[in-house]
Parts: sequence; structure tokens; C-alpha cells
Amino acid sequence: MKKIKVSNNVIRRMPRYLRKLDELDAQGISRISSSELGNLLGLTPSQIRQDFSCFGEFGQQGYGYNVSALKEEIAKILGTDRGYNAVLVGVGNIGRALMDNFCFSDWGCNLISAFDVDKDIIGREINGVPIRSMDVFSGFLAENRVDLAVLAVPKEYALSVTDVLTENGIKAIWNFTNVDIAGPDSPLIVENLHFSDSLLSLSYYISERNDENAARAARLERQKAAKDKK
Amino acid sequence: MKKIKVSNNVIRRMPRYLRKLDELDAQGISRISSSELGNLLGLTPSQIRQDFSCFGEFGQQGYGYNVSALKEEIAKILGTDRGYNAVLVGVGNIGRALMDNFCFSDWGCNLISAFDVDKDIIGREINGVPIRSMDVFSGFLAENRVDLAVLAVPKEYALSVTDVLTENGIKAIWNFTNVDIAGPDSPLIVENLHFSDSLLSLSYYISERNDENAARAARLERQKAAKDKK
Repeated sequence: MKKIKVSNNVIRRMPRYLRKLDELDAQGISRISSSELGNLLGLTPSQIRQDFSCFGEFGQQGYGYNVSALKEEIAKILGTDRGYNAVLVGVGNIGRALMDNFCFSDWGCNLISAFDVDKDIIGREINGVPIRSMDVFSGFLAENRVDLAVLAVPKEYALSVTDVLTENGIKAIWNFTNVDIAGPDSPLIVENLHFSDSLLSLSYYISERNDENAARAARLERQKAAKDKK
Repeated sequence: MKKIKVSNNVIRRMPRYLRKLDELDAQGISRISSSELGNLLGLTPSQIRQDFSCFGEFGQQGYGYNVSALKEEIAKILGTDRGYNAVLVGVGNIGRALMDNFCFSDWGCNLISAFDVDKDIIGREINGVPIRSMDVFSGFLAENRVDLAVLAVPKEYALSVTDVLTENGIKAIWNFTNVDIAGPDSPLIVENLHFSDSLLSLSYYISERNDENAARAARLERQKAAKDKK
């Protein structure tokens, strides 16, 4: 596999390709051209070919892509075959939602333990994953290979838990708190799920459309007034 | 306010600016230069100036930005002063987590009602927001101004609920299901929170770093072997 430093925008599109290819594969579609795939995803065929070319040559001129082979390749690029071990910290609503509904193993990830401070849930299991006490958190991290931590604690604990994680050699965090847990120079790999950022982007796009509609309505109004005047 | 079509990447950074400025404001910091702000966010000063210039001129040469004024401007750009009404569909774990912990009003959004099919929770309130039956969903949408819907239903209902929403004139959806609910040509404004895309990106970055480390280790090993040979 050719490997060059790939831009974030390309990386961000790879999971979308994977989801779509998964869907096509489930529908029994065995090959697809870059224009068909582009139509489904709202991307140009050349964009798609360019994205894939960052990782090697997957398609065949005039034939298109083999759906299941391409799916496998992209899954591999995204590391889903590497069997990363994850722990989840904080079994509140979000943590519980992830444990209940999010299938980590579908994405090549083993959720091996959760941690919380609530005595009522410590010792229980959700979907086969044990909930342990934060008292044994450091010890667990020291004794097990943990590749990433899912941070779902209340925001006031985000930084202190991050400290414990880094002290124990954890290098990657999936961050569900609304806190920036690492500065730009941090060696931590942090993937943020800032819900508010997402809502604010949506709010922007709604506002933009409303403004466009209002401007259009005002223009029509002016045109009508000018016409009526004549 | 100057208004041009602004790129998605710029829009995506605006909420991050807002969060950081909020933080600075809370710390009593009243002005900041673009280089200081850049350092805090891992961006170059020229990037920051360029981003803001899409919306007008906010800073003053040699003085920097007035933190609270800039915060207000960005909040306005993002539409937080427009008082959008939202409904939430699906009070499972994710829906409940949002109702319990996510402060919609902090981001200028009024969550006016939630909807579910579970008789045990219909009629209850979470944080002052009533949970209504899906039986009255269409009627509610017809009778109330609803600017956006938060879609947190199980994935098998994602498309049918989206249909009901569009039939009732809802034009924006904050999508927590892992389903692509709108094709590229859809007039719907959809903001997706695909958890799996986020995890897969993280997985990619972990893999990339592991590969780099392995390559470095192999190189050192070869150098050592070559040295030992001499």
C-alpha cells in the first residue's frame, strides 16, 4: 500500500465511503463506477478517484470498483483489522448509550471495560462489558493493553481523567465531553465529539438559508412594487 | 455584515472559536491577538484573520480582538440569537442524554417537546421538556413553529420519521442515527453525528501513528544491525 501523509478531509470521507459500500454490499451490488458512487454521496467522480489514489490503486479503468474488495481495503486503511482495545470512562447517559447501542466490534474495536464511580452500577455488565470502579482504573490501565479511551465523564472531570490516562500511557482519546482536553502541541490523539459544535453548524446553515430566502422574498417584493408602479 | 458563501471548513471552525472565546471571557481576558488565539487553537494567525474576514472586519490592527465583542459577533453569525425551536424524536439513551445534559438554550435553541412511543415515559418531563406520544407528532408539527428536529430514534425508524418531518415542512435535522437520511440532492439541511465515522477517524490516526513508530523502530534496528556488522 502506497502511504503518503493524507489530508484530514480525505480521512473524514473514508468512513462515509465505508458506510456506503457496506450498504451497497448488503444490497448485493458487486461493482460500482466512481460516478455512480459520486452520485450517491454528492461527490464528483474525480474527487473520489483522487481520494482513493492517496492509498493506492483500487479501481480498474472501465470496470469500476469491486464493492466488497474496496470495502475491505478501506476498512483496512481505517485500521478496523487491528483489534484496538478500548475502555470507556463514565457510564452516564452518553456512556450508557454507547455501551447499549454502539457496536464497537463492528468497527474493529474491543470495548474491554467501563469505569464509573457510582456504587450502584459498579460490578454490573452492559452487553458483556463489565463496569469497574474508578479505584481500580490506573491498575487496570497498567495491566492491560488499552489503545484508546472513550471519555464520557461529566465535564468537570475531563481534565483530571485525561491526566490519569496519559500518565498510564494511553495515547488516544475519543472525547465526548465538551472540553478541549489537549492543547495543539499535545502528543495525544484526540477525536472530539463536540455536540454543541455540530448543533451550531446546523444553526448556521439554517440561518444562511433563512437569510437567502428572506433576500429572495425582498427582491421579489421590490420587483413587484416596481411593476405595480408602472 | 458582509456575506459571501463561506466554505464548510470555515463554518466548522466558528463553533471552536466561540467555545474558546467563551472560555477566555469567563477568565476575564478582554482582548487577544490573532497569534495568541492561534496558539490556543493550533491555527496560524493568518488562518484566523482569513476566517473572520469572511464575515467582516472584527479586529483592529495592533490592538487585536475584543474578546466579548468577537464572541457576540460569532454567536450571531452562527444564529444563536434567532431562537430556533427544536423537537427531539426518540427518548432512548441518546435522546435522554441530550435532554438531561445538553443545554440547548446555551446555544440559542429552544427544545420545545420530545416524542417517543414508550407509554412509560409519555407524559413525563425531562428538564421541563414534555415527552409526547408519536401519535400527536404530526399534529404538533403542524401547529407549532419547529425549525429543526433532533433525530435520535432507532435506525430502523430513521427514514420513516424523516418522511413525517419533511411532510410537515421541517427543513433541518440534527441526525444522531447512523443512517444517511437525505441524498445529495435533498433540500433538507442535515447535520450528522455519525459516531462510527468519528471512531473510524480516530482508528485511522492511531494506525497511522503506530505505523510511523513501527517504521522508525525498524529503521533504528537496521541501523544498529549495520553498525554491529562493522
